[in-house]
Amino acid sequence: MVGTSAEAVQPVVEALLAEQDAIRARLDAFLRLPSVSADPAFAEGMRDARAFLLDWLRAIGLSDVRLLDGGGQPAVYGAWDGAPGRPTLLIYGHYDVQPPAPSNRWRSDPFEPTERDGKLYARGASDVKGSTTIALETVAAFLRVTGGCPVNVRFFLEGEEETGSPSLREIIRRHAPLLRADAVLSADGGRASPTIPTLNVGARGIAAVEIALRSATKELHSGRYGGAVRNALHEMARLVASLHEEDGRIAVSGFLDDLHSPTPRQREEAAAVPLDEAAFCAEVGASPLGEPGYILRERLTLRPAIDVNGMWGGYTGAGGKTVIPDEAFAKITMRLGPGQSPERAIRCLSDHLTRRCPAGVQIRIAPGAGGAEAFELAENHPLRRAGAVTLERLTGQAPLPVRLGATVPITAVFKETLGIDTLMFGFNLPDEDVHAPNEFFRLESIPAGLRGWSMLLAELGEMTEADFRPFRTAV
Amino acid sequence: MVGTSAEAVQPVVEALLAEQDAIRARLDAFLRLPSVSADPAFAEGMRDARAFLLDWLRAIGLSDVRLLDGGGQPAVYGAWDGAPGRPTLLIYGHYDVQPPAPSNRWRSDPFEPTERDGKLYARGASDVKGSTTIALETVAAFLRVTGGCPVNVRFFLEGEEETGSPSLREIIRRHAPLLRADAVLSADGGRASPTIPTLNVGARGIAAVEIALRSATKELHSGRYGGAVRNALHEMARLVASLHEEDGRIAVSGFLDDLHSPTPRQREEAAAVPLDEAAFCAEVGASPLGEPGYILRERLTLRPAIDVNGMWGGYTGAGGKTVIPDEAFAKITMRLGPGQSPERAIRCLSDHLTRRCPAGVQIRIAPGAGGAEAFELAENHPLRRAGAVTLERLTGQAPLPVRLGATVPITAVFKETLGIDTLMFGFNLPDEDVHAPNEFFRLESIPAGLRGWSMLLAELGEMTEADFRPFRTAV
Repeated sequence: MVGTSAEAVQPVVEALLAEQDAIRARLDAFLRLPSVSADPAFAEGMRDARAFLLDWLRAIGLSDVRLLDGGGQPAVYGAWDGAPGRPTLLIYGHYDVQPPAPSNRWRSDPFEPTERDGKLYARGASDVKGSTTIALETVAAFLRVTGGCPVNVRFFLEGEEETGSPSLREIIRRHAPLLRADAVLSADGGRASPTIPTLNVGARGIAAVEIALRSATKELHSGRYGGAVRNALHEMARLVASLHEEDGRIAVSGFLDDLHSPTPRQREEAAAVPLDEAAFCAEVGASPLGEPGYILRERLTLRPAIDVNGMWGGYTGAGGKTVIPDEAFAKITMRLGPGQSPERAIRCLSDHLTRRCPAGVQIRIAPGAGGAEAFELAENHPLRRAGAVTLERLTGQAPLPVRLGATVPITAVFKETLGIDTLMFGFNLPDEDVHAPNEFFRLESIPAGLRGWSMLLAELGEMTEADFRPFRTAV
Repeated sequence: MVGTSAEAVQPVVEALLAEQDAIRARLDAFLRLPSVSADPAFAEGMRDARAFLLDWLRAIGLSDVRLLDGGGQPAVYGAWDGAPGRPTLLIYGHYDVQPPAPSNRWRSDPFEPTERDGKLYARGASDVKGSTTIALETVAAFLRVTGGCPVNVRFFLEGEEETGSPSLREIIRRHAPLLRADAVLSADGGRASPTIPTLNVGARGIAAVEIALRSATKELHSGRYGGAVRNALHEMARLVASLHEEDGRIAVSGFLDDLHSPTPRQREEAAAVPLDEAAFCAEVGASPLGEPGYILRERLTLRPAIDVNGMWGGYTGAGGKTVIPDEAFAKITMRLGPGQSPERAIRCLSDHLTRRCPAGVQIRIAPGAGGAEAFELAENHPLRRAGAVTLERLTGQAPLPVRLGATVPITAVFKETLGIDTLMFGFNLPDEDVHAPNEFFRLESIPAGLRGWSMLLAELGEMTEADFRPFRTAV
C-alpha cells in the first residue's frame, strides 16, 4: 500500500462504510466516558478514556503505544512507521471534553450518546471525539485492508485541550524524539458550513485570566454598611464594563497595538464565504455587537474579542441575603488576532484593570494556562494542497479557504516546539453546540469524514518528506 | 405586681441574674435549631424552632399559645392579660435566621453555639435569638417571681424576618384581634455602641429586586461568537455600573426625588454620636465610598443606599470554560431614607435598568417581597420616654437618640396595619457579624439585657393605655 495512488483508496473507503455499525459502537463507548479535564471530580473518567484509547491503538496494530506524561493529564500515543520515504504525519485529537454544566439544560444525559433526528447528542460528540474517532478508524482500515498506511503516522491524543493545554509543551519537550514529523493533521478544527466545502487556513489565538477582587475582610451587612463602603460586585461591574466601548470596540489600551490589519487577500477570502449576520444572530437569539468597520466573518476570525466567561460573588442562593459582598470573581478569555501574543494581551488587560481598581480594593489577576498565538497555514503549503484536492474530490467543488474564530492552540504549539504546520481537518460543524448543553455531532458527518480522511492520507502518501522541508522551521 | 413601681423590679432582676446558667442553656438549645427561612432545605429547623417556642411560651404561663398562619412561615404567639388599665405591649422577636453560607468561613459550626473570649458564636446569636430570649426570660421571671407582669403582653415571634416578611401583613390581617396593643417592644433593632447608651428612634426602609438578563437562547462558544454578539455578563456589568456615579452618589434618576433632606435636629443627633470613619472602615478592611456632603452616620441612617447582594452568570466552576454566557443574574437591595416608598424606589430602579438595557437583550425585574418604608419614633412618644428613663437608670447616662442603617420592616408594618409604634430595644451590637460568617452575641449583653427589659416593663407599667392613645393611628 506504500505509495498508493489516490484511486487505490477505494477498498479502504468501502470497508469503512460497510463497518459503520461497529464504528458507531466504538464512538458511543468513547462518548460514555466522562473525560472532563477541567474538574478533578471527573478524574476517573479521564483515566478510563486513556485506558480505552491505549487498548484501541494497540488493537489496530500501532507500535510504541503508551502515555506521554508532562506532569498534567498525559497524552495517548501510538506510531506506525512502515512507509519509508513518505511523509510522517502527527495525527492530533483530544480525548478530554468540556464540563457538562449546566447539567439541567441537557435534554438527555450528556454521557449517554443519544440519537435524535440524525444527530448524536453527547458531551464531546462534536468536540472532538467524533472527528478523533474518524481519524483512528481510517488508519485502522488502511492497516487492516491494505496491510499498511500511505504515510507514516504518530497519533497524539491530548487530555488537556479543554483546559488550555497546560502541560502540552512539557510533554513535547520530554518526548520530542517520538513526535518528530513533517506536519500535523488535526481532528480538531472543523468545517465552516454543511453545504460549502471549506479548508481551514487559520485560527484565532487565545489568552485567559481569572480576576479576584476583595473590598473588605468579610461580608458586610447592607443595612449597617450600605452607603459607606465599596461593594466588590460594584467594582467588578465597573471593571468589566470598562473593557469595551458602547459600540463594541475593545477599550483596553495598548491591546490592539500589535494586531496585524487584515490584508486585502484576507478580506477577500473572508467576504467570499457568505455569512448572513441577521440569520447568524437570530439562530441563537443573540443581539449583534462588535467592532465597527469589519464584516461579521472578519470580526469572528481576524479581529480579537474579549469575553467574560463567568462572573460571581455574594449571595446566589434561594431568597435574599442583605449583604455587601467582600469578594467578586471573573473568568475572562481573549481571542487573539494575527500578530498578538498571549503574554502581551494579558499584560495589557492586567494594566488596564489594575489602573482602574480603586484604592482599598485588592485585585488579583491570575493568567490562565495555555495561551496561544493566532495560526496561519502558508498559501503554497503541501498540507493546503492535499486538503484542497481531497475536499474537491470529496464534494465536487474547490473549497474556500476559511479561518476559525476559535482556537486550536496546538497549531501554535506544534509550530513553536516541533517546527511543523497543522491542517485542521475535523468534520464537526459550527452549530453543534460545543461547550454548551446538548452538544451533538451530525451522523452523516461520520461517512463523509471517513471518506475524507482516507482520501487525504492517500493524497499525502503521493508526497515525500522533501515536499515539507521548506515549510519546517528550526526549533 | 400590677402597678409596680420601678423600684419593685429588684427581686425580678435578682432572680434573673441568679438563673443565668439555665437561661444560657435555653438560649443554646434555641440556637441549635437551624431555622433558616430563606432556604426550603431548612424546613425541619423551622418546624423545630416553632415547636420549641410553643413549649416555652406555655411553660412560662402565657395563654392562647399558638401559631398564627398567614400562608408562609407562621408566627408564634402567646398572651398575658392580667394587668387591667395598664398598657398592652406587643413583644416582637423573630425565630428565623440568615443562611449560614459561606459555611466554609465559619470557625465553628454555625448551629453549635460556641463560646470564645466572652462571645457566643452561632448563626442567629445576635440576630436575634439572643435578644428574643432576653425578652422571653424577663416576662417569665415577672410571672414566676411576682405572679404577674407590669404590663399586658402579646408575644409575636416571626418566622420570616430574614426573607422580608412576605406573609406578615396577611398574618396580621387574619389575626388582628389577637394583636390589639398600645405599642410594640421589639427585641430586634439593637444598640449602636458598647460604651455609649443609645435609644433607637428610627430605621431605614428597604426594597429588593432580582434582575435576570438573557442575551441569547443558549450559551455560545466564545471562539465561534466572540466579537459578534452581546454577552449577558457584559450587559449586567454595564447596568450595575450605571447605578452609581464614580463618587458614590446614586445615579438612578428620580430615585432621590421623594427623599426628605435631613432636618437640622436630625443632623445634630447624627453628629452627637461619634463614629470615626477611618476606624469604621479599617475594622472590616473596607474602602470608604458614599454620597459626598454627608457625614458617615448620615450616609448610614438618613440617606439611601443601593447594593448588589449577589451577581452571577456563566461558568463559575473549576478551571475554564470558553463560553459567552446567555444569562446573568443579580440580587439588589435598596436601603431607603425618610420619605421614600419601596414601590416607587423599585419603579425608579426598574425604569433606569430597562431604559439602559440594549435591544435584543431581555431583562426581567422581579420585585422582592417585604418592602418597608423608613421608620421614625416621635420625639414625645411614651415609648421614647420609657426607653430613655430605663437606659439612663441602667447605665447612669442619658441615652443619645440614634437611627439604624438597617431595616426592621415590622416598624413600618405595625404602624400601617395596627396603627402602633415600635421601640427597638435589642441588646445586640453592630460589630457582631450578623448576616456574615462567625456571627456572635456578647455574653455580657445577656445580664445587661435582662436588667434593661425588667426595668423597661416596670417603667411602662407606670403608664396607662391613655398615654399611648394620642400616638395610635386609625387603621
